[in-house]
Amino acid sequence: MIPTHDLQIRVRYQETDAMGRVHHANYITYFEMGRTELLRANGYSYRQVEGEGYYLVVAQVDIKYLLPAFYDDVLTMRTTVMSARGARIEHVYEVYRGLELLASGRSLVACVDKQGRVRRLPSWLQKREPR
Amino acid sequence: MIPTHDLQIRVRYQETDAMGRVHHANYITYFEMGRTELLRANGYSYRQVEGEGYYLVVAQVDIKYLLPAFYDDVLTMRTTVMSARGARIEHVYEVYRGLELLASGRSLVACVDKQGRVRRLPSWLQKREPR
Amino acid sequence: MIPTHDLQIRVRYQETDAMGRVHHANYITYFEMGRTELLRANGYSYRQVEGEGYYLVVAQVDIKYLLPAFYDDVLTMRTTVMSARGARIEHVYEVYRGLELLASGRSLVACVDKQGRVRRLPSWLQKREPR
Amino acid sequence: MIPTHDLQIRVRYQETDAMGRVHHANYITYFEMGRTELLRANGYSYRQVEGEGYYLVVAQVDIKYLLPAFYDDVLTMRTTVMSARGARIEHVYEVYRGLELLASGRSLVACVDKQGRVRRLPSWLQKREPR
Repeated sequence: MIPTHDLQIRVRYQETDAMGRVHHANYITYFEMGRTELLRANGYSYRQVEGEGYYLVVAQVDIKYLLPAFYDDVLTMRTTVMSARGARIEHVYEVYRGLELLASGRSLVACVDKQGRVRRLPSWLQKREPR
Repeated sequence: MIPTHDLQIRVRYQETDAMGRVHHANYITYFEMGRTELLRANGYSYRQVEGEGYYLVVAQVDIKYLLPAFYDDVLTMRTTVMSARGARIEHVYEVYRGLELLASGRSLVACVDKQGRVRRLPSWLQKREPR
Repeated sequence: MIPTHDLQIRVRYQETDAMGRVHHANYITYFEMGRTELLRANGYSYRQVEGEGYYLVVAQVDIKYLLPAFYDDVLTMRTTVMSARGARIEHVYEVYRGLELLASGRSLVACVDKQGRVRRLPSWLQKREPR
Repeated sequence: MIPTHDLQIRVRYQETDAMGRVHHANYITYFEMGRTELLRANGYSYRQVEGEGYYLVVAQVDIKYLLPAFYDDVLTMRTTVMSARGARIEHVYEVYRGLELLASGRSLVACVDKQGRVRRLPSWLQKREPR
């Protein structure tokens, strides 16, 4: 299993705010894009995951903003899965512009069924521990 | 039937962009809010409409931007239904700040079922013509 | 000084996602709206704050999601200032639908000048301690 | 001058709505991304354009929605400049998923200075007519 993935994101004009920076709420969306692409790097698509009746809902996000990002910047969204057991996945995130760390974060996502009831992660989504 | 409704909208910081103005895509969302509240002013909720299996999807939008809006402005979103027949509703829109007209637009929404097939509007959504 | 403010927010269709819930990034925007209205409840507008050369940038946000919110829900965004000293303000947040707590959070905002340098909060923004 | 550019856009989960489709306001943002990349394909960046004191504000958008787009779709945003003279640029847009046309549109952007006054396009932004 590939635990880390780097995604390039070009900042959209729509994502900036009147301070001339990327509005801070957009990083939450960048994190989500990172999760999608990390899953794809491991051979799965989140669309298929939902197709099989598993929904991954965000239960917690922590984020620290260190430096601003600007329109047209190319950011590197680095997403790492820390654990995936039971019904929970923990990720950590770093957003870079070149070598500069702009933001870092962490999230917990919970696996539920279509009705919103907690559901054990499918085995192929569980992170295999190193032996 | 009440054909016109005025909704007050306070501009959010998140809606501004690096030019210091409300980003132009947000007006499309304001129009949608206007449609929701015009429906409510007539005693219906769009949530109920969907609950009964009618989905109103946007088929066309035209918009003209005349003057910029800024953070914390209180806008008046004026929404008017022009016609509602067959499977289509036509609205026109005006966005004001006080007496200044900032933007105007027009849309067509189409009524479909959950599978996306065109569906005749329920009779209570059809606009009664003046006799 | 009024430390807590309740803001009513009607969920927009645009804020929902394909799971039928409010997309989790929108709560960050709701928090920001809460800060704006708490400031206004105390007699200030954030637009004036920026006009005087003070910019409040978000340095940290933590959020826990407990229950989903849906289209057309009327939410209560409760915002409380915990401390406002030096160049930092700490807020806590609770999002309710009626008596149900849907989400809770905490943020730190930092005061900077137009060039992004840390700047001491103006005295009128500092939270007066009870004696 | 290259008049047309194709940009690949992967649909984000955040861009979907409770109907399971891409919310229609996002196409306006896709159009904007198309303009940015068409400019870049011609050797310019819009960031530099603003750096030289030219601001391109949207004056008009018309859009027709033909078929829905879904989460994780890879769309082709085709942007074509039709004319660029005086203080106005006209673009047309087509959004495809493979060979399916999902939406089409047209916009006028106006060139203004930092104070919002109409400003003639710089000569290097004017579209050279075929002789």
